[in-house]
Order: sequence, then structure tokens, then C-alpha cells
Amino acid sequence: MLPLSSWVEVPENSDFSIYNLPYGIYSHAKYSPAPSVGVRIGNFVLNLQQCAKHPDFWADIAFDTSVFAQKSLNAFMACGRPVWRAVRERLTDLLRHNTSYTLRHLHEHAVSVGQSPYLIPVEEVQMYLPIEIGDYTDFYSSIEHATNVGTMFRDPANALLPNWKHLPVAYHGRASSIVVSGVDIHRPKGQIKPADAPAPIFTPTRMLDFELEMAFIVGKETALGQSVSTAEAHDYIFGFTLFNDWSARDIQTWEYVPLGPFLAKNFASSMSAWVVTLDALEPFKVDSPAQNPEVLPYLQYSGQYNYDIQLEVFLKPEGGQEQQICSSNFKYMYWNIAQQLAHHTVNGCNIRVGDVCASGTISGKETNSYGSLLELTWKGTNPIRMVDGSERTFILDGDVVIVRGFAFKNNVRVGFGEVYAKVLPAL
Amino acid sequence: MLPLSSWVEVPENSDFSIYNLPYGIYSHAKYSPAPSVGVRIGNFVLNLQQCAKHPDFWADIAFDTSVFAQKSLNAFMACGRPVWRAVRERLTDLLRHNTSYTLRHLHEHAVSVGQSPYLIPVEEVQMYLPIEIGDYTDFYSSIEHATNVGTMFRDPANALLPNWKHLPVAYHGRASSIVVSGVDIHRPKGQIKPADAPAPIFTPTRMLDFELEMAFIVGKETALGQSVSTAEAHDYIFGFTLFNDWSARDIQTWEYVPLGPFLAKNFASSMSAWVVTLDALEPFKVDSPAQNPEVLPYLQYSGQYNYDIQLEVFLKPEGGQEQQICSSNFKYMYWNIAQQLAHHTVNGCNIRVGDVCASGTISGKETNSYGSLLELTWKGTNPIRMVDGSERTFILDGDVVIVRGFAFKNNVRVGFGEVYAKVLPAL
Repeated sequence: MLPLSSWVEVPENSDFSIYNLPYGIYSHAKYSPAPSVGVRIGNFVLNLQQCAKHPDFWADIAFDTSVFAQKSLNAFMACGRPVWRAVRERLTDLLRHNTSYTLRHLHEHAVSVGQSPYLIPVEEVQMYLPIEIGDYTDFYSSIEHATNVGTMFRDPANALLPNWKHLPVAYHGRASSIVVSGVDIHRPKGQIKPADAPAPIFTPTRMLDFELEMAFIVGKETALGQSVSTAEAHDYIFGFTLFNDWSARDIQTWEYVPLGPFLAKNFASSMSAWVVTLDALEPFKVDSPAQNPEVLPYLQYSGQYNYDIQLEVFLKPEGGQEQQICSSNFKYMYWNIAQQLAHHTVNGCNIRVGDVCASGTISGKETNSYGSLLELTWKGTNPIRMVDGSERTFILDGDVVIVRGFAFKNNVRVGFGEVYAKVLPAL
Repeated sequence: MLPLSSWVEVPENSDFSIYNLPYGIYSHAKYSPAPSVGVRIGNFVLNLQQCAKHPDFWADIAFDTSVFAQKSLNAFMACGRPVWRAVRERLTDLLRHNTSYTLRHLHEHAVSVGQSPYLIPVEEVQMYLPIEIGDYTDFYSSIEHATNVGTMFRDPANALLPNWKHLPVAYHGRASSIVVSGVDIHRPKGQIKPADAPAPIFTPTRMLDFELEMAFIVGKETALGQSVSTAEAHDYIFGFTLFNDWSARDIQTWEYVPLGPFLAKNFASSMSAWVVTLDALEPFKVDSPAQNPEVLPYLQYSGQYNYDIQLEVFLKPEGGQEQQICSSNFKYMYWNIAQQLAHHTVNGCNIRVGDVCASGTISGKETNSYGSLLELTWKGTNPIRMVDGSERTFILDGDVVIVRGFAFKNNVRVGFGEVYAKVLPAL
């Protein structure tokens, strides 16, 4: 990796160094009243619509810069991996010290006359869901999470079901209710069946939980009937976000047999605003855990498809201060993204640009690395003590849940910022 | 109901009488090269883009007729129920005998000079998926189907799981792979675990099945957090199609615990091309089966939300003749559409125009009314004898599966046409 630095000021420990350059959808009252594509660097958003006014920045890249004026990343993603790579390289060239491009001068001249159309302070923008989501799939790929859940709800001696080590279990989730970081969530209502009750009751959930997940975004479509091999998976994945798959455990317990989770999950999921590209994560690749038994040939792969990404969850009570309640890592995933995509399409299921595939809850081996309150408090039996003296088994109204994530190696930090949401009372 | 007849010739027993007037998306080389909105009557498609050129047809209805030029029904549906009703009444006026509108003369004049821009013979058009689908939900609302499956796979003495009579069980399905009638389906491949095998194997499914379903189309959106009551459901539902939820039973058996069906279903679902409106089905309303135990208040309703719709499935072997293999009825549904929508949104899950909610397999009490081969052949133990001498436990390559459905009362027939697809060998 060449040492790089930018003429844009990037605070130390920023998730958004020049090595990152994630994409998002933002608006700004003056410089982009309609949502459009921006790139985050330090505490600024690079206005790509404005940059598109300079054809010399893009002349040798075979794409239409009008994709930067769209209200989602889908049109840009549909340009394909060669364009993703070329644009990323060009953005690096535009933003690096000793650049031969005029962006720096354009920006500095604008600033000198009181304008900032190129680099907009992030505190002045509104962020939006970056993707127009087609289908949303949620995997269940952390062996520690699946083992914990199986131990609590089924049989500690046979915590993993027979299929779990043979295929990356997944289900289809709800796309309509995926919201961007910062959107408040109402506590969902639904049917639960208390153990001592003769019949189900209707109530706001009493066991509201988060799930610490990441999600990859599909950037290339397939035709119905076509499959994507593990070796091809890389070309179909644009990037990653942080993901919180809110879950109502009491609703889930009552409803989920035999067809899986429905109302326990589909009231909301939260996604971080900046999509970090696979290319930016390349330096942080690591091996996957060994798989035993050996998987079927269509799930075998060569190369590395896991990433060393530190993940942390914080809880902030109403009026209180945030406190870390879990620390996990994406690298714990038993099933990697190449295997997930190969499995998803092996039956001919078609994928589309903008599909979202979440990881499932990412738990590690240590008890403080569990990615949900269900596991952290062991079904509510072991409450978390908060610094304000209160306890948590599940999430209370007024709580803010914040997930943060970043990769760090050789003094280079590439992070996701955060996905946060406040839980409001049931409507 | 006033007796109505049209100046357009409608064959006796046509599904598409003037009482129906379903909407679809079609193209025609000359009169609508790009897909646009049409209305079916008899064996003709009424070209609404052409009709939109006559503002006097629409002047008193508060909507923009450019919605007829769209490649899906979504924009028209988003106009809302008052517009759906007004347009339906106007179409009836345009097409009835003794009409005061000029459509008939315009059409007859065009025909006299060898043109047919208003009414296009249906054999000249190409049909498309009528909806841009947001999310697709599949319910499990036939008590006979759920009982049959529970008996076969779990426990005959406790065939229904404890939650089944308390809530309309459902799961999220795959939207990307829903195709219009006539699109061929490739036999899916996947993991199965034969009972006598030590480990799963990878193979084309050996137990390919259809599921006889209907689907309702959401025509009005809600905000995240909002719920739709059973009394309001009617305003949120535009109409119905026939639906075949293709299923690979061996893949399903191995994969579905604990999170529900995934690859066993998401390789394809087939939808009929014409969306029959709720208003057209109004005369065919019937009471739902009695529910015992009493359901929770949010699932209670007044009025009728079931429909007497005769449903039939035909199987046509390669080179052979089609033969009926099942006869069922939508009215058997234990959970009705008002209850389904109220349940779906009671937790605040938002719905969008174009969402599809399928019924789940519709089986009746009689063995010939079962809506899947799984049930008709009782897990393959009781093969169906075909007129060509062959037998079917599950679907063979080259088979065409055809689902037809219609309502009939007081000499009025309102039908759906059919949804059919041929099964091709695995790729």
C-alpha cells in the first residue's frame, strides 16, 4: 500500500481517510437541494455532482457522470466493477497531495469567496438511505451466534441444527422498512405468548433487541436461472454497510414456527449512511475460520473473503451517556460473502443491483463479543449494569443504540462511521 | 347489479366480460412498442395510452392520464381508490352498449381503414409482469393446507402449530424472481439430504411442486410505524392475480429450520398477467369460515373479505394434452385479506404500492381440492395417473403447469385467465 495523504484535512483516527472514500446519498440546502451522490473524506462530503461539471476529471472513464445526480447509488453501481475501480482511483488522484488535478484550486478559490460547493462540511448535510433496495436477505452466518441461540432455545447438546455447517442458512427480510442511521424507531406491538398465559396477548414488545450485523450491497445483476460462483462473487459485490437488525424476541418466539421470523423483524432495520467499497477493504482481508465438515464443491473457494473489521455496540439511555456493551469482529463469520452469494444463486435465484445481504448477528467467542442483548444478557437472566445505575435486559424506550465499525492496519484506518437510532414508545 | 353488455364482442364463458375489466401491462409492435397499461375485454386489449389522447373521456376524473403510459401499474395504483373507482366506471361507460362516448365510433372508423389502435387483438400483444414489486409476502392461510403439511411432516395429532389459529402465519419471499405467466422456469438445483445419506448432496430438485395461490396487490402506502385496521384494509388493496409459488420440497425439507423457506422457493414464482380489481370481485364476496378460538381484537372484522373464486390446476406433459389435477376455491381461506393486512402492519411495518401478498397454498377438504402435488400425491406415495399413461408424484421436465380461476354468479363471469409456465431442465 502506498502511503497516501490528502490536501483535505482528515482528523487523526477518522474513519474517513483517503484510503476509504465511501459513497453516500446526501442533500445540502444550497449545493445539492435534491439528494445526490457524495463521497466522505474527513468531516467533509465531496459533491460529485459539482465535480461532474469538470469533464476533464472523468474524460477517460467510460461512464455517464449523470449517475452522480441520482438519489441512490444504484445507477453508479450498475456501471460495474471496472468503473467502480477507475472512479475510486480518480477520486484518490483528485484528493491526494501533489494532485495534478484542479479540484484543490477550485475548492480553495471557492472558499476564498465564502463558498464551499466542492467540499461540504458534513454537519451541514442530510443523509439518506444510500441504496434503492430490491430484495433484502439476512444470513445467519456466525457460528457463535447460532450456537448461543440454539443453546438457549433448543438443546445445548445439539445447539446447531444439522444443516448449519453444510449451508449458509438465510431468510428473506423486509426491504421497505430499512432506514438510514438516525431515523427513530417505534417500539413494535404484536402477539406474544407468555409461558403462564393460556392464550396469546397483544402488547408492545417487552424484549426489544438489536442485532449487530454488516450488510453487503449487490452491484451487478444476474438473469433468472444464472448462478454466481465463489470465484465470481467479487464482481457482484459493491461494498458494505453497518446494519442493525432490530428484533422483538417475544414476538419472534411465538410467531416463527414453521416459516421463520416475520413481524419480529420487519418493523425496522437500520443501515449506516456510507457504503464502504470492497476495494477500500481489500487491505484488511483475512482467512475465514476453518470449515469442518468440508463443504460441497459449490461452496468451496480460494482466496480470502473475510475482513478484519472491529465492531462495537454502544447504548445511550435517555439523557444519559453512551457506554460500550459489546465488542465483536466481522472476521468471526463462519460463512463468508463469496459462499453466501454462491449459495443464494445456486438455484438460479436472480439478484439485482441494490439487493442487500446482511450477515446475521456477528458474535465472537467471548461473552462481551456477543452481538445481541439476547446473548449478552443470556435471555434476560444476566442484566447489563449501566453507568447511570440502571440495568438492561432488553432495550428501553428512549435508549439510543449505536453500532460503530472500522478496520485498522499499518496506520491506515477505514471505517463505517456509525448506525444509530433512538427507540421511541409504541404508537 | 345492472345487466350490462358491451359493443365489443365477448365470447360466451370469457373470463373478461364487461363486468371484469382487469388491468395489465402489454406491448404491441405497432400501437404500443413500449410496455403500457391496457384493459382486457373479451379477446381484446383496450389501449389506454390511445384512449388518453381523448381528454373528454377523462376530464372529470382527478388524475394524470400519463400513468397509462407507464411500464407498470404502480403509478395508476398510487392514484388511490377514488380514482380506481372512477376510471372503472368510465371504462364501463366507454365500452357498454348505448354509450354516449365516441370510443366505439373511433374504433369502428379505424377498423374500416385497416387499423386497430384502440382495441388490439390479444394474440398480437406481449404481456409483462403488471407490477413493479416492492416486497413480496407469502401467507399460509389455508387451514386444510397447513393441516395436511403438519400431518405429513410433524404430528398428525397436533398438525397445526400452537400459533396457527391465533395469527395469519407468513414469511417474506423473493420479489426479484416473480415472473409473468408464460415465462419458462428452470428446475432448480440445491442441497438435499436423502434420509439414507450420511451428508447432503447437490442435485437438481427431485421434488418440484407447484402451489395454487392467489395474490393481492397493495395499492396504497403507509408510513413506517402506521398500522392498517381490518376496516381500512379495502382502501389499501388494488386487486388480485393468480399465483404459482413453485417449491422444491426436498430442498425445503433440508434448509427450512429454523428460519423458513429460502432457496426452495426463491428460484421463481409465476403471476397471471391481468390484475382483477377488488371492485370487480365485489359481487362474489362470501363469508369466511368461522374462527375458533376467537381472534385478538386487531384481527376481528365486520363484513365479508372472502371471495367465491373457483380455482383449477392443469398439468400438460411435454407433447401431451392438459388434464385437470385439482379443483379448489379461494373461499376456503381461514384468514382473509383484511386480517392478513392488519396483521402485517400491526407492528408498524410499512407497505408500499406494488407490494404483493400471496395467500399460501389454497387447499379444500376434498382430496382433489388440494393445492399442491405434495398434498395431492401425499408426499409422493399416491401418484397421479395421467391420460398418457405416465404417473406424476412431482413435476417432470417438459411439464406445463396451468392455474386458472374465475368467479361466476347470476350469469356474470369475472375471471383471471391463467398463469402457466413450462418447466425446463436444470441449467
